[in-house]
Amino acid sequence: MIQEITIDNLDPEAFIADQVAAIGETVGDGVAINALSGGVDSSVVTLLGHRALGDRLKTYFIENGLMRAGEPEQVVELFNDMGVPVELIDARDEFFAALAGITDPEEKREAITQTFYKDVFGRLVRESGARYLLQGTILTDIDETVAGIKRQHNVFEQLGIDPEEAFGYGIVEPLVQIRKDGVRRVAEALGFPASVYNRMPFPGPALAARVIGPVTPEKIALVRGATGIVEEELADVEAFLKLAILHEDRVTGMRSGERDFGLQIEVRCWDSVDARTGEPTEIGWPILRRLSDRILAEVPGVVSVTYSLATKPPSTMEAI
Amino acid sequence: MIQEITIDNLDPEAFIADQVAAIGETVGDGVAINALSGGVDSSVVTLLGHRALGDRLKTYFIENGLMRAGEPEQVVELFNDMGVPVELIDARDEFFAALAGITDPEEKREAITQTFYKDVFGRLVRESGARYLLQGTILTDIDETVAGIKRQHNVFEQLGIDPEEAFGYGIVEPLVQIRKDGVRRVAEALGFPASVYNRMPFPGPALAARVIGPVTPEKIALVRGATGIVEEELADVEAFLKLAILHEDRVTGMRSGERDFGLQIEVRCWDSVDARTGEPTEIGWPILRRLSDRILAEVPGVVSVTYSLATKPPSTMEAI
Repeated sequence: MIQEITIDNLDPEAFIADQVAAIGETVGDGVAINALSGGVDSSVVTLLGHRALGDRLKTYFIENGLMRAGEPEQVVELFNDMGVPVELIDARDEFFAALAGITDPEEKREAITQTFYKDVFGRLVRESGARYLLQGTILTDIDETVAGIKRQHNVFEQLGIDPEEAFGYGIVEPLVQIRKDGVRRVAEALGFPASVYNRMPFPGPALAARVIGPVTPEKIALVRGATGIVEEELADVEAFLKLAILHEDRVTGMRSGERDFGLQIEVRCWDSVDARTGEPTEIGWPILRRLSDRILAEVPGVVSVTYSLATKPPSTMEAI
Repeated sequence: MIQEITIDNLDPEAFIADQVAAIGETVGDGVAINALSGGVDSSVVTLLGHRALGDRLKTYFIENGLMRAGEPEQVVELFNDMGVPVELIDARDEFFAALAGITDPEEKREAITQTFYKDVFGRLVRESGARYLLQGTILTDIDETVAGIKRQHNVFEQLGIDPEEAFGYGIVEPLVQIRKDGVRRVAEALGFPASVYNRMPFPGPALAARVIGPVTPEKIALVRGATGIVEEELADVEAFLKLAILHEDRVTGMRSGERDFGLQIEVRCWDSVDARTGEPTEIGWPILRRLSDRILAEVPGVVSVTYSLATKPPSTMEAI
């Protein structure tokens, strides 16, 4: 049973000191490795690990082909500017090969998990000589996985899977006692810019979680374009999470006066404190209309744009 | 080439007199038959035909299993109250059998067309001895069909199909020179209640046009439930068309704390004058939220509700 530290009981400085000490104690004089996605969770873990281990922490950014436009380069540059070396690994072909033809969301997550841990990361770990993986699992991930709502990409032990046996290394999870609001406060205390500690959550399976049905490089390119428009047009809208989803269903539309059985983009924007529950964000009509008009004009083949009105539950934040 | 009568040039009383005379001339002392769907187009045609032919017009309401809740009974009762006899034909099994397993929207429309004209209506015509079918085709139907945007269910001659040869009878279309706004004005002049002349358009393929993917009685029941909620909750919203669409895509949700790979309902509400172009209706946030909450609570298996933001074009009004 994990002891939760609620946002009211969280002392960020003490938490940082405790976790830095705990990482140092667990890893000893060994080498640890971690994957940085650019999200607030993995960013915090990277800096905690760097404080504890210095250059005995090897941090990789895995370019899986599923990230947003410009994201890999921006994340690596931010950390390099903070004095934390991050290596970018191009694994796009491996991920798309693993995802080919898969429709079921759980199988999609599983393919990404296996490619990430077993193939790409396993190889890096073997080459690095690391015995430990630092990982940004938070309490909400564990709640949802234990409840069977969603298979998270990073919760082996809670599922009774021994990561040492299954994947060849131990996993250290410094954030399992806190939730997203706590992680943000710790990130601020660590000196990250607001663009990191207020950054919207972005799922482990990245844009693959934003494509209903089989994932291809072409579909990822479409949802990446829509995601960029959502983030630009809703930049001034305060929300917990803003996302674009490419549907698999085709709907009748028309282009240049001819019938076009085209694509649909769904936009979701969530108000939430800790991701456990959520409400759709109220957005002004002119903003919604401009957003829709841009997606229809700029994302090839899209003939329909919708905005989600559902609460969580019964919805989840992501569609996959 | 059909000569359009624009709304500004339409004299409803003169139009009614002209069309009643034309129907009488074409049908002579024969018998005509027509199908009443309850929409404003077929309602107007029924009354024009009744004025021209009296009891030599046989009007049928085909219960195809695809109508809204209570609709068949309400329509028959309204006309009986106006002194126009309408016979209700239960053809539900025939339509669902014809639709089984069909995913493509055009094939769906074709299956409904064939079942309607060739099977059910053809049988009624043979039994009735009628040589003529009165039908509510309007100018917009012809524009869209000729442009290849959508295959309407009632535009044979424009497509070069001879209905006498293909189906065994001649088709009379009194409304081909006007559009929806004109039909509404004629309906009002004919003495219909506002519930008829301001009634939202409802497509020929009915709720089958509101189900993405294969149509089953179960899916029709779900979208019928959502449609009822949309019509209730948006009763005070002025719009050209309000509809609910059941998507085929499944999305992740949760019910009673467990993962549920559930259904999505899309709501569309259109501002339009004549159906050629359209904009999404601006609806207040509390109304949208209550609408969504009711659909999530009352339509079994639905975990996601969206509202369409797209314009026509590139969208069309219906999804199918």
